[in-house]
Amino acid sequence: MDRGRLEAFSDGVFAVAITLLALNLAVKGPGYGSLAHQLGHQWPGYVAYLISFFTIGIIWVNHHTLISNVVVVTRVLLFLNLVLLLFVVLIPVATGTVADYLAHGGFDAKLAVAMYGVVLTGMSVGFSSIAEWSLREGRTRVPVPPDKRWAARIRFMSGGLVYLVITGCAFISAPLALGLSGLVAVYYVFERTPVVGIWGKNTGAAESGGPAGPAGPRDT
Amino acid sequence: MDRGRLEAFSDGVFAVAITLLALNLAVKGPGYGSLAHQLGHQWPGYVAYLISFFTIGIIWVNHHTLISNVVVVTRVLLFLNLVLLLFVVLIPVATGTVADYLAHGGFDAKLAVAMYGVVLTGMSVGFSSIAEWSLREGRTRVPVPPDKRWAARIRFMSGGLVYLVITGCAFISAPLALGLSGLVAVYYVFERTPVVGIWGKNTGAAESGGPAGPAGPRDT
Amino acid sequence: MDRGRLEAFSDGVFAVAITLLALNLAVKGPGYGSLAHQLGHQWPGYVAYLISFFTIGIIWVNHHTLISNVVVVTRVLLFLNLVLLLFVVLIPVATGTVADYLAHGGFDAKLAVAMYGVVLTGMSVGFSSIAEWSLREGRTRVPVPPDKRWAARIRFMSGGLVYLVITGCAFISAPLALGLSGLVAVYYVFERTPVVGIWGKNTGAAESGGPAGPAGPRDT
Amino acid sequence: MDRGRLEAFSDGVFAVAITLLALNLAVKGPGYGSLAHQLGHQWPGYVAYLISFFTIGIIWVNHHTLISNVVVVTRVLLFLNLVLLLFVVLIPVATGTVADYLAHGGFDAKLAVAMYGVVLTGMSVGFSSIAEWSLREGRTRVPVPPDKRWAARIRFMSGGLVYLVITGCAFISAPLALGLSGLVAVYYVFERTPVVGIWGKNTGAAESGGPAGPAGPRDT
Repeated sequence: MDRGRLEAFSDGVFAVAITLLALNLAVKGPGYGSLAHQLGHQWPGYVAYLISFFTIGIIWVNHHTLISNVVVVTRVLLFLNLVLLLFVVLIPVATGTVADYLAHGGFDAKLAVAMYGVVLTGMSVGFSSIAEWSLREGRTRVPVPPDKRWAARIRFMSGGLVYLVITGCAFISAPLALGLSGLVAVYYVFERTPVVGIWGKNTGAAESGGPAGPAGPRDT
Repeated sequence: MDRGRLEAFSDGVFAVAITLLALNLAVKGPGYGSLAHQLGHQWPGYVAYLISFFTIGIIWVNHHTLISNVVVVTRVLLFLNLVLLLFVVLIPVATGTVADYLAHGGFDAKLAVAMYGVVLTGMSVGFSSIAEWSLREGRTRVPVPPDKRWAARIRFMSGGLVYLVITGCAFISAPLALGLSGLVAVYYVFERTPVVGIWGKNTGAAESGGPAGPAGPRDT
Repeated sequence: MDRGRLEAFSDGVFAVAITLLALNLAVKGPGYGSLAHQLGHQWPGYVAYLISFFTIGIIWVNHHTLISNVVVVTRVLLFLNLVLLLFVVLIPVATGTVADYLAHGGFDAKLAVAMYGVVLTGMSVGFSSIAEWSLREGRTRVPVPPDKRWAARIRFMSGGLVYLVITGCAFISAPLALGLSGLVAVYYVFERTPVVGIWGKNTGAAESGGPAGPAGPRDT
Repeated sequence: MDRGRLEAFSDGVFAVAITLLALNLAVKGPGYGSLAHQLGHQWPGYVAYLISFFTIGIIWVNHHTLISNVVVVTRVLLFLNLVLLLFVVLIPVATGTVADYLAHGGFDAKLAVAMYGVVLTGMSVGFSSIAEWSLREGRTRVPVPPDKRWAARIRFMSGGLVYLVITGCAFISAPLALGLSGLVAVYYVFERTPVVGIWGKNTGAAESGGPAGPAGPRDT
């Protein structure tokens, strides 16, 4: 199994999932009140769309950084990757449910955002399991030195923990929990992915994709 | 015709099909009872989603192992591959039908799961026909020795047979047949694909994708 | 512009279009009569699905053969390719309309199949325009000798003509015209694509994708 | 991060978005008046489909030209690219809204086309931000000389401005604004992308994709 096809399949799933997100924003059409009224009522949909779009975008960026460092592709890695995608693919549906129920308030709104949190937690667990797999000797081009493994583990596991806390928060306040998911996305856009940052040596080159980095532009 | 584009097109189809699976889990929205009630009623949908997701995932993994070993891409192979994809593409629709009818019980539930079994049988036949095609001398990098061809045939054909039996079982009990499909998926996740295992020599390297294997990470 | 990305984008469109075809086969769910009844009523959908699936599959195979021979990618080629994709993308919708109206008979059935014929004609015109573009000196690896260009033209243009005739036939009999579209698909599955067959020299190698052919497996 | 996967993911999103466009043209099926009547009523859908199809096609062509010139892939570029895709993905939904409301006239039609204009403006801003990013020294293979940067800026920013004006026009006349969007698409089909035209030296080779150009066919 070569890395290229693992990436191609994953990219396809990420691309379809991120495009399906927008379908939740379709209006019902003439006969359901004025268009301005319908668009105005959709505001939770816009917020949820933005958060989910950048969340999937960030997973894609970090997935790439992680996988481009991998040198052996085993069946275990393929199935851990499937677990990650299992949850990525649920994000459009969970986002649509949040968009439908958030403005209605009550327990339904809380449950919708909690489900959204569960999906993001599952996605984060899938990602962490791939990162954990990659820590073992000989699986990556730039290995993580043994004494830095726990630091790496704590970093990628904290993402799942934050999403778990958000899931719990949803039962206190649905908008608060959704807002926190948005903050996590903003944080990850501005923070560099920890994977190469902590583990690699050629950090700068890895980021710039320069020829000396582990993932130069000529790499695929 | 080069192998790269056969893989790219197939990966695209696998990726879209696996992502569409999740759309079956969308709830109807406010006005159809509480969200908790709607989610609770969807349990057959979650079960069917999980089974179909890993079934498509396994086909993708095995498809890759099989195709990466191929050295000549003929029109016959392209059309056998289309037959496989013809059934892969039907999995989301068949899964949705199972999700809709399983809880209703009666003949409709049995028929829905039987149809699902027919689609999986067809998919398995498509896969076997590609495997059969690849047995001929000079078509693969690591050829199967003539005395081992029947063993290989029996292994990849048994998958289709199992799905055929499951299709029959559906008329006795729909949940039983669906459960058996799930067991098949679990079996294939933990069993290594027989293709390289039986046929190849560098089994370990092939699995790890190491540089000595027939499908090293630099291959694409 | 490199050929790789033209192929990747086209493959993506072909893959999504061929997967969306299956969505037309979804049943309405409980409450619309027994499942057996609903499935029985869908027979035009199955026929239309099969014809469209293999029609898109054939276009994809021939598109690849044609493009893999191209050495210069100009803006004109990119836009001719977009014209082809403009019609490919309409095939799922046109197929769904045929599936919905064929059994109803009358003028609606005829119009639905005629529209389907128009989409296939447009697709064929798009393909022919790419083939025509590729005839000019220096645009392909294996050029067509000037004295064989008209023979090539007649071959790829006859496809469009056949679909135009089928469109006309639809107004006489919708099932007849749909059946003829199916025959065209069967014909193209068993006939080799004329492009390399007529134009190229290394016909056998081109078909087998051998290392001597213009599109060996190492090509991408 | 290598350029190949940035392109693969973007191509996937472009391909799914351009294919989803056609779904807006599906008719409601038997029971909603004759098929001829339904198809006749859909004319705004056909117009909007054509304009959006070529608009996405043009963005894809120009995106490729721009990215193929890039030598370093940074996180900033990845997120600017996500901003572009955020709006690309909204085009099918915005197109569907225009198709639904244009014939109804009144403020709803104006608002639908204005929203469409906002999405195209956002897409143009996303594209311009990538182009702006690429102007800095050392980020592209064929750099833009400092004295030509403002000329380049004016060219790629004028696209966003035109779409902003179209958005304003929508409140005067919806069909006029939609027609103007169509004219912009026609203009871009026939005009060469300014990016390499202004900035590069090997303009001709870049366009023909010849071996001497910055993006020859062997490039990926």
